[in-house]
Amino acid sequence: MTDLVTFGETMALFAARRTGPLRFARDFDLGLGGAESNVAIGVARLGAGAAWIGRVGADEFGDLIRATLAGEGVEVHAVTDHEAPTGLMIKGRRTADLVDVRYYRRDSAGSRLSPADLDPALLRSARVLHVSAITPALSPSARAAVRHAVSEARAAGVAVSLDVNYRAALWSPDDAGAWLREIAGEVDVLFATEAEGRLLADGDGPEELAKALAAFGPRHVLVKMGARGALELSDGRVLRAEPYRVTEVDPVGAGDAFAAGWLADWLAGAEPELRLRTACAAGAFAVTSQGDWESLPRRSDLALLGGAADGVSR
Amino acid sequence: MTDLVTFGETMALFAARRTGPLRFARDFDLGLGGAESNVAIGVARLGAGAAWIGRVGADEFGDLIRATLAGEGVEVHAVTDHEAPTGLMIKGRRTADLVDVRYYRRDSAGSRLSPADLDPALLRSARVLHVSAITPALSPSARAAVRHAVSEARAAGVAVSLDVNYRAALWSPDDAGAWLREIAGEVDVLFATEAEGRLLADGDGPEELAKALAAFGPRHVLVKMGARGALELSDGRVLRAEPYRVTEVDPVGAGDAFAAGWLADWLAGAEPELRLRTACAAGAFAVTSQGDWESLPRRSDLALLGGAADGVSR
Amino acid sequence: MTDLVTFGETMALFAARRTGPLRFARDFDLGLGGAESNVAIGVARLGAGAAWIGRVGADEFGDLIRATLAGEGVEVHAVTDHEAPTGLMIKGRRTADLVDVRYYRRDSAGSRLSPADLDPALLRSARVLHVSAITPALSPSARAAVRHAVSEARAAGVAVSLDVNYRAALWSPDDAGAWLREIAGEVDVLFATEAEGRLLADGDGPEELAKALAAFGPRHVLVKMGARGALELSDGRVLRAEPYRVTEVDPVGAGDAFAAGWLADWLAGAEPELRLRTACAAGAFAVTSQGDWESLPRRSDLALLGGAADGVSR
Amino acid sequence: MTDLVTFGETMALFAARRTGPLRFARDFDLGLGGAESNVAIGVARLGAGAAWIGRVGADEFGDLIRATLAGEGVEVHAVTDHEAPTGLMIKGRRTADLVDVRYYRRDSAGSRLSPADLDPALLRSARVLHVSAITPALSPSARAAVRHAVSEARAAGVAVSLDVNYRAALWSPDDAGAWLREIAGEVDVLFATEAEGRLLADGDGPEELAKALAAFGPRHVLVKMGARGALELSDGRVLRAEPYRVTEVDPVGAGDAFAAGWLADWLAGAEPELRLRTACAAGAFAVTSQGDWESLPRRSDLALLGGAADGVSR
Amino acid sequence: MTDLVTFGETMALFAARRTGPLRFARDFDLGLGGAESNVAIGVARLGAGAAWIGRVGADEFGDLIRATLAGEGVEVHAVTDHEAPTGLMIKGRRTADLVDVRYYRRDSAGSRLSPADLDPALLRSARVLHVSAITPALSPSARAAVRHAVSEARAAGVAVSLDVNYRAALWSPDDAGAWLREIAGEVDVLFATEAEGRLLADGDGPEELAKALAAFGPRHVLVKMGARGALELSDGRVLRAEPYRVTEVDPVGAGDAFAAGWLADWLAGAEPELRLRTACAAGAFAVTSQGDWESLPRRSDLALLGGAADGVSR
Amino acid sequence: MTDLVTFGETMALFAARRTGPLRFARDFDLGLGGAESNVAIGVARLGAGAAWIGRVGADEFGDLIRATLAGEGVEVHAVTDHEAPTGLMIKGRRTADLVDVRYYRRDSAGSRLSPADLDPALLRSARVLHVSAITPALSPSARAAVRHAVSEARAAGVAVSLDVNYRAALWSPDDAGAWLREIAGEVDVLFATEAEGRLLADGDGPEELAKALAAFGPRHVLVKMGARGALELSDGRVLRAEPYRVTEVDPVGAGDAFAAGWLADWLAGAEPELRLRTACAAGAFAVTSQGDWESLPRRSDLALLGGAADGVSR
Repeated sequence: MTDLVTFGETMALFAARRTGPLRFARDFDLGLGGAESNVAIGVARLGAGAAWIGRVGADEFGDLIRATLAGEGVEVHAVTDHEAPTGLMIKGRRTADLVDVRYYRRDSAGSRLSPADLDPALLRSARVLHVSAITPALSPSARAAVRHAVSEARAAGVAVSLDVNYRAALWSPDDAGAWLREIAGEVDVLFATEAEGRLLADGDGPEELAKALAAFGPRHVLVKMGARGALELSDGRVLRAEPYRVTEVDPVGAGDAFAAGWLADWLAGAEPELRLRTACAAGAFAVTSQGDWESLPRRSDLALLGGAADGVSR
Repeated sequence: MTDLVTFGETMALFAARRTGPLRFARDFDLGLGGAESNVAIGVARLGAGAAWIGRVGADEFGDLIRATLAGEGVEVHAVTDHEAPTGLMIKGRRTADLVDVRYYRRDSAGSRLSPADLDPALLRSARVLHVSAITPALSPSARAAVRHAVSEARAAGVAVSLDVNYRAALWSPDDAGAWLREIAGEVDVLFATEAEGRLLADGDGPEELAKALAAFGPRHVLVKMGARGALELSDGRVLRAEPYRVTEVDPVGAGDAFAAGWLADWLAGAEPELRLRTACAAGAFAVTSQGDWESLPRRSDLALLGGAADGVSR
Repeated sequence: MTDLVTFGETMALFAARRTGPLRFARDFDLGLGGAESNVAIGVARLGAGAAWIGRVGADEFGDLIRATLAGEGVEVHAVTDHEAPTGLMIKGRRTADLVDVRYYRRDSAGSRLSPADLDPALLRSARVLHVSAITPALSPSARAAVRHAVSEARAAGVAVSLDVNYRAALWSPDDAGAWLREIAGEVDVLFATEAEGRLLADGDGPEELAKALAAFGPRHVLVKMGARGALELSDGRVLRAEPYRVTEVDPVGAGDAFAAGWLADWLAGAEPELRLRTACAAGAFAVTSQGDWESLPRRSDLALLGGAADGVSR
Repeated sequence: MTDLVTFGETMALFAARRTGPLRFARDFDLGLGGAESNVAIGVARLGAGAAWIGRVGADEFGDLIRATLAGEGVEVHAVTDHEAPTGLMIKGRRTADLVDVRYYRRDSAGSRLSPADLDPALLRSARVLHVSAITPALSPSARAAVRHAVSEARAAGVAVSLDVNYRAALWSPDDAGAWLREIAGEVDVLFATEAEGRLLADGDGPEELAKALAAFGPRHVLVKMGARGALELSDGRVLRAEPYRVTEVDPVGAGDAFAAGWLADWLAGAEPELRLRTACAAGAFAVTSQGDWESLPRRSDLALLGGAADGVSR
Repeated sequence: MTDLVTFGETMALFAARRTGPLRFARDFDLGLGGAESNVAIGVARLGAGAAWIGRVGADEFGDLIRATLAGEGVEVHAVTDHEAPTGLMIKGRRTADLVDVRYYRRDSAGSRLSPADLDPALLRSARVLHVSAITPALSPSARAAVRHAVSEARAAGVAVSLDVNYRAALWSPDDAGAWLREIAGEVDVLFATEAEGRLLADGDGPEELAKALAAFGPRHVLVKMGARGALELSDGRVLRAEPYRVTEVDPVGAGDAFAAGWLADWLAGAEPELRLRTACAAGAFAVTSQGDWESLPRRSDLALLGGAADGVSR
Repeated sequence: MTDLVTFGETMALFAARRTGPLRFARDFDLGLGGAESNVAIGVARLGAGAAWIGRVGADEFGDLIRATLAGEGVEVHAVTDHEAPTGLMIKGRRTADLVDVRYYRRDSAGSRLSPADLDPALLRSARVLHVSAITPALSPSARAAVRHAVSEARAAGVAVSLDVNYRAALWSPDDAGAWLREIAGEVDVLFATEAEGRLLADGDGPEELAKALAAFGPRHVLVKMGARGALELSDGRVLRAEPYRVTEVDPVGAGDAFAAGWLADWLAGAEPELRLRTACAAGAFAVTSQGDWESLPRRSDLALLGGAADGVSR
């Protein structure tokens, strides 16, 4: 059963093992990452059915992506592109505090996503469609795919979730803002950091910002505030959550984890307070280990955060 | 010369090199660990003679344990079990703050320890016998071995030291508590965390707890309080020690190090205040590097903790 | 669609990175292995539908096994055993020419397989049931499971394939021989090395041996002769195949690959000569890289062996 | 002093540490490679002055390329391209005998080389210009750059060296053949394997092939025959060299090393027999260690090959 | 163009990958380090021309040093010593807070530096000569080299910079103090920690100390105060700078980076306030990654520290 | 019980993990090595009592040497030198066929061995004293130590064994030859390669050479001929042994292993034919894994070589 369907580009990921300028890194681990597939994994780990649609190259990296996502329990609907390779990410740390990510995704298989890659029956059978604003910045066909998917979803009564996920390397703030303002009216759930929220709206402080964002139409607005926690505006009601205190190992993926936690609990019909805490807990877990998605929690993990302060195992 | 004799199960240890769920860990280091042999190493490094009795399999891991302990200056009295393999530990970190340890020790050589494995002359020749409450939880024969050793020691006027070292994976709190209450009257030195102390006694706060524990008979009760330091009740007198502030690299082994520090100073006839500080210093050292026992200090290391704040060595 | 169904114990595998006595190995890679799941992966890579039934512990290693097999396209029907852990293999190389494998599988989840773990509908829906003679040596319940599965298969007209896979650590040659002689009459395809064949039959040279084995009932007898290739006796006709010459990196898994290659081509209705060459090619691929199953070929890989002599890729 | 000037694309190189399908490789080393810069390093190690012209991205990989080549004593004339990233190579081994190389170089900085990147004064000041037939396959501007450089060189009396280096991933045999036939008349030294030679000429056996190639104009034709050594046709005279017998660690880079050895000796005015032996020796060295160029020999290394049979160093 | 010329011993460096006693470290990375060449790299990265003079052995480590420094854009003037090997450093961490460095430099090539190794024309052509008080402690000839270089510099109107860099393993505080007092009058820029400053002068607090040091003659006195920032006394004027807050990965090299930052800005004619901030920023960068010099900043990096608090890069 | 006593320099050993010029090696393993302690380990593994005398620095490397040798069952009589560090070896492979070893042992602790370091009672209590001709080349005091030990041994009726082990980096062939001719008359067992034998004697072919060596006095002369096996001349009788065929992983240590095998069997009173085969088998084992001594065989291992051809484990 597919509760959530998502699509986007997933890439092979070379992660440097040592901190410092990337050219001195020497050793790299091969893995994979992609904002939308991270969300799919996160949702699946929390017990909901998740499907991911994407394009991969006819290469080892494409095979790695298929096998890993399927192994994580995500339904994989991947088109194999025989003309273009799977995209790459290279991830290092310039300092212990500064992540350095580079992409080789121009004309990649994943950036060539198009409306034809999306199975309408699959889109219509889900309870929620999740997209990010990375996809529209990849190519015209990818942008059309987002537009098409959102239309299909709305026509079928499927809720639409959007995580802004602004990538400065792909488009300008102005272009991103314009597109976001255009799509925001068709979105039911909107995830954004404060800086991302300001791409499409103004507002003093996170609460005013959330209200300005909600004015575009989303019923649920989630503002992620890093070390200050998160704020949710749902049906006019404001909730705030403190962040969990964990030792950060790798900050990448926290936003995807937050979205996954929120969506999984929304799908499960959890109370808003619990739902927001689950989102924060998932975000906290995501930063506790290397890899963009490897440390996403299961239901049974969520209780561990409380015990973390003791630094004790069973 | 054997000042301290101890026995218990020592296992080969596969330690994951990366933080996160164990299934993503990929690279592991081979080492070894065991609460009692950790104490023996710690005592030997601080200048006393230490002997370890145990059973290992007729395999490479058994050879590794023999060679490593002997190399650390511990007198090894190991029986080779041709029927059962050396036990294993798999150690990872679920998050930077949560250690995850799994055991493959059921029916292992070490769990098959029995009274016959203990050389009575060796037991009687020592100044202190150190045991942990892990051993009685391994098997009936191992439990009998502890009982037997304690009797031999007492008969010969050898002091008895017990570190509770409660392992939830091996027995229930009730079973552990019952056994501990039974043995406590024959113990001269008792090491316990607050939670462990409460397995056999009540008491508000560590001081009350220590007194309740001392009521069972031990002349020295040591309550380990983690980030709040340690408390000692010896001959009715209470001492408290602040913890050393160090950057934790691996929390496993701190309790064994504490016991080793205390016992080495007790064997050396140090003043109680110094003895407790040595225990705390040894515990602090133990968490400063990877491995359960590798960073146990020598006498010459103890001065380094003061200089740690400068982050500079010679 | 499930063409082949198999079952057996799959274990987490710690593989040493350096050659020499295991106690000096230091670095290990975590992976997994199991004769039957290796065959399932091999068959799936060659285009047939494969299902694997097994038991795993409620632990990270069990999760690793599920995720990896599912990622390889194998249908996973795994029971989670909450009483017993996933078994382990430790694999090293004593010398460049001598593999050293140790198991921690006594009372493991996988060794507790029983008839009740086998879904009769699944068994009956397949075209071939593949088993190995490792499983009956694991435990009485596992032995009963093999017997039960073979009966179900035969009753439903499903072909039965058996790879002897003799493990001296698990049972004696006499015990193995007795069991094999008992089951051989219900088997359609029998895989054995010459030494394994002699556990149940005599015969000078591989051809005589094959005939003696066929006398038990199997329609297809495959005798693996290592550096001298392989011999097949099918419906009274003898075929011989020369081995492929490849640089061996890791000999483990060659037999499973051979079986997978043969079964995949049998399922595909290939000509006997081609089928035997595919078996040999798959066996050759299996030894060309580290890992028991990672280098199993796909259809598109099979052509690469011819080009290997040039040491050149595209 | 610049004896040799060359240009082409140099890329960052991720090399898998383990043999098998790339998706299971896990650990990668970061390095760099490029046929022409490999030749420049090889020539510089053998004592001649070498300059390399290229384009790199404004990124860490571009910096790595500059620093490494400069550190190897090559004069670096690199344009920084602020629009395009440095290209990548991913190198693995499908089996111990099959190298697997993948490129991310479409629209890379290096593929955007153009005539304007070539300093005419530098081209004219050298004694030999070395190019490969990789460059014309990268882009129209890169193809124009080769044409332009060759014209400049000939106009200034600078010898022209061409290594065919056919890359099937970049263009078809027909396209490559057409271009090669067009340029061959302007080339003084031509390096080709037998298969590459047949892209532009016919001829039974290497000697006939060499003559057919020489008919296009090159004064020196070098035919590389792998395990059968090499053949040179210079000024109508045929020389043959046996290959050195070494244990191959990484076959990539042998051809570049051969060219470097030959050119360095040609620049040094060595006798033809010695020159061809140096080429073979350099080629032999190149395969003896990991990396495309790291093991290129110095003059002092050349004597080591003779001693290799003893397996002993000083 | 050479703005800065420096000289001293640069060594190959084996850095342990794991924290704990060095004998358990197992894995080491090969690199290089030397206080003066660190400064040269730092100055070159910040845009000035830097030359390094030294002696290296006729060995692989000497080649590594030449190649690495040249690759970093430093002009290398290295004498090859055929009698003595390149010196070594072994670097580990006893605890996360205590660096452990050992040297194999007695009679090394670098310690045999002598006045004859210093090209007078090079010394005179620079704008500043930078030396450390490590060199005079290496050998009599090395001490003479410092004296000689300072005389040449002063005679030619080249400014002289001295970083105390006291090494207790090489000489006593008394010997160091005597030498420093002797040379201080010929120095224009003096870098010292508070403890180092007290080797040659007294003074309550850093400001009084700076004044006492300035009394020897230096126009610029820089007192490094670790976690309390830095103080500069230039032409009688006192400036103070707060330290940057970064997560420390490797403390070694911070002092060299500070000197490099200050000197680069002094060469560039920056305002004193900016110059001191650049020095602090460079020092902060140096500790953010493994390696003594790898993380030295470029001009473009300096802005990154401000963003560090967000833990996010582009 | 000490059957064999030996002494010499044992060093910490950094072994490169990758083949190629050492400056590109990047990753190193820390271990230890020394010709004489290798022999002691080898003898101990084969069941005899072995003691090693040496000097180590007051450093982590000295501790590593003590712990490792003791862990291997060798009686360690090591003097701690507070003035000089433990020596180092750096080991790489220039090519797969050429080992590259560099030493940092000048003025090391081990090279400062002197007669006073040798306990006369220990020397006299052994059945054989084993020395190498490395030690006399280290320093005058070390040379005196050899002379002294040999005298003590002879006076006490202890047999003397000498392995030539010529090191060109330490002394000239002429100096070595002179010393060897001088000592040879006091030696009972002499080990030499053919080239080493020719340092002190002439003789066409190995047999003539052995006779010429025996003429100096040794009752047992062992000539090691690499791929051609070994020849023994004992009491006028010639024995020849074929080498074992194994896949070589690391050639270092084969000679020490050969001596250990021979001496262990001589101590055990084995027949000459078996003794020579054990020597060859031990030599074969030594090259089958990384490390100079790690793969030395035990008695139980010796049978494995026969099975090696099958590439099969239990």
